[in-house]
Amino acid sequence: MAEQTERPEYATALGASSLKKITLLGHDLAEDVMGTVGFGELAFWLATQRRPTPGETRVFEAVLAALADHGFTPTAIVTRLTYLSAPDSIQGALAAGLLGGGSRFLGVTEDCGRFLHDVLTSAGDALPADDAGWDALALDTVRAQREAKRFVPGLGHHVHKEGDPRTPRLMRIAAEEDLFGPHLSLFAAIGRVHPQVLGRTLPLNGAGVCGAALADLGLPLELLRGFALLARTAGLIGQLAEELRRPVANDIFLSVDLNNRSVAPEPYTPADAHGGSHG
Amino acid sequence: MAEQTERPEYATALGASSLKKITLLGHDLAEDVMGTVGFGELAFWLATQRRPTPGETRVFEAVLAALADHGFTPTAIVTRLTYLSAPDSIQGALAAGLLGGGSRFLGVTEDCGRFLHDVLTSAGDALPADDAGWDALALDTVRAQREAKRFVPGLGHHVHKEGDPRTPRLMRIAAEEDLFGPHLSLFAAIGRVHPQVLGRTLPLNGAGVCGAALADLGLPLELLRGFALLARTAGLIGQLAEELRRPVANDIFLSVDLNNRSVAPEPYTPADAHGGSHG
Amino acid sequence: MAEQTERPEYATALGASSLKKITLLGHDLAEDVMGTVGFGELAFWLATQRRPTPGETRVFEAVLAALADHGFTPTAIVTRLTYLSAPDSIQGALAAGLLGGGSRFLGVTEDCGRFLHDVLTSAGDALPADDAGWDALALDTVRAQREAKRFVPGLGHHVHKEGDPRTPRLMRIAAEEDLFGPHLSLFAAIGRVHPQVLGRTLPLNGAGVCGAALADLGLPLELLRGFALLARTAGLIGQLAEELRRPVANDIFLSVDLNNRSVAPEPYTPADAHGGSHG
Amino acid sequence: MAEQTERPEYATALGASSLKKITLLGHDLAEDVMGTVGFGELAFWLATQRRPTPGETRVFEAVLAALADHGFTPTAIVTRLTYLSAPDSIQGALAAGLLGGGSRFLGVTEDCGRFLHDVLTSAGDALPADDAGWDALALDTVRAQREAKRFVPGLGHHVHKEGDPRTPRLMRIAAEEDLFGPHLSLFAAIGRVHPQVLGRTLPLNGAGVCGAALADLGLPLELLRGFALLARTAGLIGQLAEELRRPVANDIFLSVDLNNRSVAPEPYTPADAHGGSHG
Repeated sequence: MAEQTERPEYATALGASSLKKITLLGHDLAEDVMGTVGFGELAFWLATQRRPTPGETRVFEAVLAALADHGFTPTAIVTRLTYLSAPDSIQGALAAGLLGGGSRFLGVTEDCGRFLHDVLTSAGDALPADDAGWDALALDTVRAQREAKRFVPGLGHHVHKEGDPRTPRLMRIAAEEDLFGPHLSLFAAIGRVHPQVLGRTLPLNGAGVCGAALADLGLPLELLRGFALLARTAGLIGQLAEELRRPVANDIFLSVDLNNRSVAPEPYTPADAHGGSHG
Repeated sequence: MAEQTERPEYATALGASSLKKITLLGHDLAEDVMGTVGFGELAFWLATQRRPTPGETRVFEAVLAALADHGFTPTAIVTRLTYLSAPDSIQGALAAGLLGGGSRFLGVTEDCGRFLHDVLTSAGDALPADDAGWDALALDTVRAQREAKRFVPGLGHHVHKEGDPRTPRLMRIAAEEDLFGPHLSLFAAIGRVHPQVLGRTLPLNGAGVCGAALADLGLPLELLRGFALLARTAGLIGQLAEELRRPVANDIFLSVDLNNRSVAPEPYTPADAHGGSHG
Repeated sequence: MAEQTERPEYATALGASSLKKITLLGHDLAEDVMGTVGFGELAFWLATQRRPTPGETRVFEAVLAALADHGFTPTAIVTRLTYLSAPDSIQGALAAGLLGGGSRFLGVTEDCGRFLHDVLTSAGDALPADDAGWDALALDTVRAQREAKRFVPGLGHHVHKEGDPRTPRLMRIAAEEDLFGPHLSLFAAIGRVHPQVLGRTLPLNGAGVCGAALADLGLPLELLRGFALLARTAGLIGQLAEELRRPVANDIFLSVDLNNRSVAPEPYTPADAHGGSHG
Repeated sequence: MAEQTERPEYATALGASSLKKITLLGHDLAEDVMGTVGFGELAFWLATQRRPTPGETRVFEAVLAALADHGFTPTAIVTRLTYLSAPDSIQGALAAGLLGGGSRFLGVTEDCGRFLHDVLTSAGDALPADDAGWDALALDTVRAQREAKRFVPGLGHHVHKEGDPRTPRLMRIAAEEDLFGPHLSLFAAIGRVHPQVLGRTLPLNGAGVCGAALADLGLPLELLRGFALLARTAGLIGQLAEELRRPVANDIFLSVDLNNRSVAPEPYTPADAHGGSHG
């Protein structure tokens, strides 16, 4: 194997310490950050290495609020059950909950941001200048998805069938802060035109509008899921705090364990002839 | 096994959804929380089910800023290496980093908060009314620890040997907001008197003062580590964002792998005579 | 901060690779390990850097079988729910389940092994030579725990109130392999004498006897929990495999979510007067 | 939201307990499994709900041995660093290491198994009957990948450039046990013919051949990564055991932290014109 002939160095613009000073993002942590920079602002700053404007911070924090907690989601149940089983490790309970933040339950934010971004990139330099233009682009987009038999990310909700209240609210906040950019414009247009193609009206959901807003804030698409996880970390701490005072995890465990039904093993065979070893 | 005869119910005051509305902590999420409540404020609210004052939010967010990122800590390295190895799972990279948030690297905040709390509880109802009183209590406290050959949590730092800049800053912020309570008072007094007992001057470290400040905010002691983990989640997202643009994880991996030295196995035997089987 | 003046080297006796060869524990992986060494044997070897005897392997694998799966434990539920929520990450579902392997549900194995070990260490060089001697030591041990108002680890089971079938079986296997050492001897004696002290008969549970057997195998006490986790990894893969074919996670999720009861927030106040900020 | 009108039941053929008996996969755990069933055999059985033959167990355990440990991989480093940082939580250190078991470092096994399976499925019922037939199918396969500018999973290794010693060994073991099925046949043929298409000779790597062998054993393709993780769990316990006795994690940490280079923040801007907010 090759030799490394020089000692490697590891560059970072994040935290650094010396005898008398701690620096974060090139600023004096104690004097210039603590007591001055809010936590949402700091998280944005850490992720982009640029300090957000107050308007950007407000939109960003509105997104985090929208995603922080949704009651007894699988992630919340997992955090509570893990705490029940391993109360010695708060970090384990939080980490276990976050591990549910994947493609299905938290992924819509990321998928929607990426999807809108891809459409905009394909559309090239000349983005629409008015609602009619956005509607035309949205119509092409929804039609293409339907032809490819693919869902439009961000469309539909199993509870808020007549509209997710977070969606118009986040759009309004973004507009107030002059941060209603092309991703939100396209998403809103999809909301207007999709019934023409799909034959029924679906709500633009909150996870989707959050993805659109984060993309309009210029945040890295690769990390959209990360912001949903940051929001959820606060939510899971809330779940743990409540579990400490009004525990439900043991009842959940027993409700499963006591209702187990023992069935006979069912030997697995691959779905087709080639799973086994007989060609 | 016993039967559960009634269907269990699971009480929560956190998130709830109905057809047209999402409620968080008893408030309308879209109208009353999004766009209005900052993320630090929301995290405090979720953990305590009471909305913090602006002063409480400022102290809390100063703590989160103090703990968010310290450069190439083990947790940061772990998140970067996990992303290198499994780039398909942002949640896994963040969760892996948080799992390092245990007794050694992030535990001081929790240990210090609990320690100060225990001393105050033992001291009973009559807490000191002035610095002289706090100094006397602190002197007893440090002496007792020394006699028991135990460290005082929050005392000492391997880099900031002449003082951790976060400590006076956080104390000043707490004082400005009229939130300098008994935990910070005792911690400050420990800083003043410990040289009389230990024979040398150690700094009050930043992790410790954060624990004292969180305890003075009335936050649940069981969750102090959780707040450190919340802060660290923002820091780890920053580490991931930087890894995407200025990758170092592969260099770290190679610096270890290429400098491995193969040695002969050394069969393990328990330290004493009874580890083995002497039936 | 101090300089590292020399390039560090990292010693290991585990895996190593060169152009034509892969070595594991000093042996040729392909020729001497693959096809020859069973998986339980290999896990023992990796943990101790000594190859176990067939008898040691048999006892070790009996322990792993005893701990692999117990139906719908919290760890099993967590793995299934995490898979439901993030089906893109098998590693996340397994890791989340393992995080429940802490002090409460998997900890008995470790606690029991350590407890027995501490008693034996205190007893010094002259261990009992017969059952009467072990009974006397066990009687002292149970009395001391009772006086200190502490439980005896490994004693009691919420289902197998009249005896855990794993306990006599594992003792018999250990005896057959001439590996019934001092930890199992003391544990068995505790089973015989505790009614004299506690006034009722409790079963020696399976998790406890596994800890005793692992300690008699001379395995590192710090890692007893690790072996329980290894066993459980196989069990959790079984849970995932079953979830793929007979899914229950969504029903579990809905059984909680649909039975949520929204309650008013209950502001948290610390239990005593000093939690707040009033010195 | 819909009501669940009946109490749900949760079917499982895995572990079950009653007062006097513990059942695993329909067998008496204590009497029929402990002391009789090896750990590799048990893991196979749990995953498929059918007991493997001795030959299947031997191939399966050979795969587990091949994947258990590869020295200072990112997963090994992560487990050691997490233990350094949070020594109170063995489960956290193991879980953190497993989280690196994703698409890049452990994914080849799964990708290769799936890839071979897809080719075989497309080939339909009439699989080749001799080496010439397999070579023809392999040639089509490699050509199709090259035209699509995609890699062939399992082909190539950064160290074992002249051949991975695990590959011929595992093929030999499978042949000895009469378990050399269509996946291994196709994989071997790819090894023979790919130089004709790619213009150079690459080794069939160990991770790939393991995927082929697991697929020939009829194991669920969705879980191939899970078996790699099971093997790795044993390896990570070995890493932890060695870290306890010959610690290197602190040196690794310092080698990074002391060689950090503080650089100026570099504000992130999305790669294209639409990332930002052009409202």
